[in-house]
Amino acid sequence: MKDPHIKDPTAAIIIIGNEILSGRTRDANIQFLGTRLCELGVELSEVRIIPDIEQTIIDTVLELSGKYTHVFTTGGIGPTHDDITSESIGNAFGCTMHFHPEAMECLKQRYNNELTEGRKKMAWIPEGADLIKNPVSQAPGFVLNNVFVFAGVPEIMQAMFDQIVPQIATGDPIISETISCPKLPESAIAEGLGKIQHACPEVDIGSYPFWNLKGEFGVSVVIKGRDKTYICKAVDMVLELVHQLGAVPIQQPAAAC
Amino acid sequence: MKDPHIKDPTAAIIIIGNEILSGRTRDANIQFLGTRLCELGVELSEVRIIPDIEQTIIDTVLELSGKYTHVFTTGGIGPTHDDITSESIGNAFGCTMHFHPEAMECLKQRYNNELTEGRKKMAWIPEGADLIKNPVSQAPGFVLNNVFVFAGVPEIMQAMFDQIVPQIATGDPIISETISCPKLPESAIAEGLGKIQHACPEVDIGSYPFWNLKGEFGVSVVIKGRDKTYICKAVDMVLELVHQLGAVPIQQPAAAC
Repeated sequence: MKDPHIKDPTAAIIIIGNEILSGRTRDANIQFLGTRLCELGVELSEVRIIPDIEQTIIDTVLELSGKYTHVFTTGGIGPTHDDITSESIGNAFGCTMHFHPEAMECLKQRYNNELTEGRKKMAWIPEGADLIKNPVSQAPGFVLNNVFVFAGVPEIMQAMFDQIVPQIATGDPIISETISCPKLPESAIAEGLGKIQHACPEVDIGSYPFWNLKGEFGVSVVIKGRDKTYICKAVDMVLELVHQLGAVPIQQPAAAC
Repeated sequence: MKDPHIKDPTAAIIIIGNEILSGRTRDANIQFLGTRLCELGVELSEVRIIPDIEQTIIDTVLELSGKYTHVFTTGGIGPTHDDITSESIGNAFGCTMHFHPEAMECLKQRYNNELTEGRKKMAWIPEGADLIKNPVSQAPGFVLNNVFVFAGVPEIMQAMFDQIVPQIATGDPIISETISCPKLPESAIAEGLGKIQHACPEVDIGSYPFWNLKGEFGVSVVIKGRDKTYICKAVDMVLELVHQLGAVPIQQPAAAC
């Protein structure tokens, strides 16, 4: 999986679960994965949230695994009838399924050898897949081709992600600088900011208005890129613009995204 | 737009914004829209989160507007250079752009007739689109064909959604019943629940484990459908199963999703 020849690796996330689409559950995985991928220099190109329908899972996985360096799925690998992710992904790649011996061993230990059908289902994994250990509740995820299959529970998903980091192709971190401008309306900075973006095509400049219930408002300008020189140039230009507009910018420490 | 001949209307959401993909901002719109669409009997079939790239916006809007009854977009309709949603959607449908007179009037009032280029940009709307008013900060959204274009700021998006409800095709509400089962592991209920789902194909049964930092755990069973009779039948079967397993179920009041 780790391929030194991949430059600027990309990724997609597939969130699998009716409970996210119905509004019952608010997704808590996209922000974690988006942040971590930025730090690793992997560009998250798109996210899809899809229902627990086998053909939809198959179509989405095949489309995105062909388009991006890495695909991460969350959800649908538990013990119940509505957990159909593992088998759907196996079917997507034409793999037969089997009770993975190491996964069975993990589950036997967790359940004191009392393996019901539901518990065994969590070891029913496509042949040829490598396990991703689950230090929280043992039932593993797996990786098949460039698709990483994680649990949906955030605590477990995060522990699984941490383990697979050494396996994935990474790039130079995407760095971001944020300049916060209290009391400056976004519409006042728009024209000047557009000119700076035009003059600095090597970076991405984003503009995000903010306000709170006290009536305080302003705009945050975010400058992103992989090369510090270009970022510093754009930051200086934005700071000058903000000063010209009579506002007092607050430059936040640089961070990976 | 309101078409009484549409049975079981469907929808997709397109979240447009680099800031969601980079992890800078946690989406706050999917759960609101998912919940409201359920109440309105509109099935939310998928969500995509995509970057501020014109061709990606065009391709995604055209694909999803052809597949679903309604498409809702959020984000990218502000005054700055990175707000490219309106023009991209106009281009997707081959519309020329114009300064919409009513939108210009709203913005003139908001900005005391001081219309900069950035402010005017928020009135640059595809010809033939109908405005969606913005009671929070005036800059409007719009509807073009079956695509509803909302702001990304949750407070504004919600106010825009409330306005367009009378225009959209709706269906019988999707009702959900939740049975919470403290101290029951999901793996214990899996086999019986699968049998109930098999016996009740008219409803969707979902199973969601929960736990907290105090070590309390359990599983919530969610039964969804449009017909109360089938839902009641499945609820009774689940309650019986939970009792058989020695757990004490807590039935939450029925709600739209």
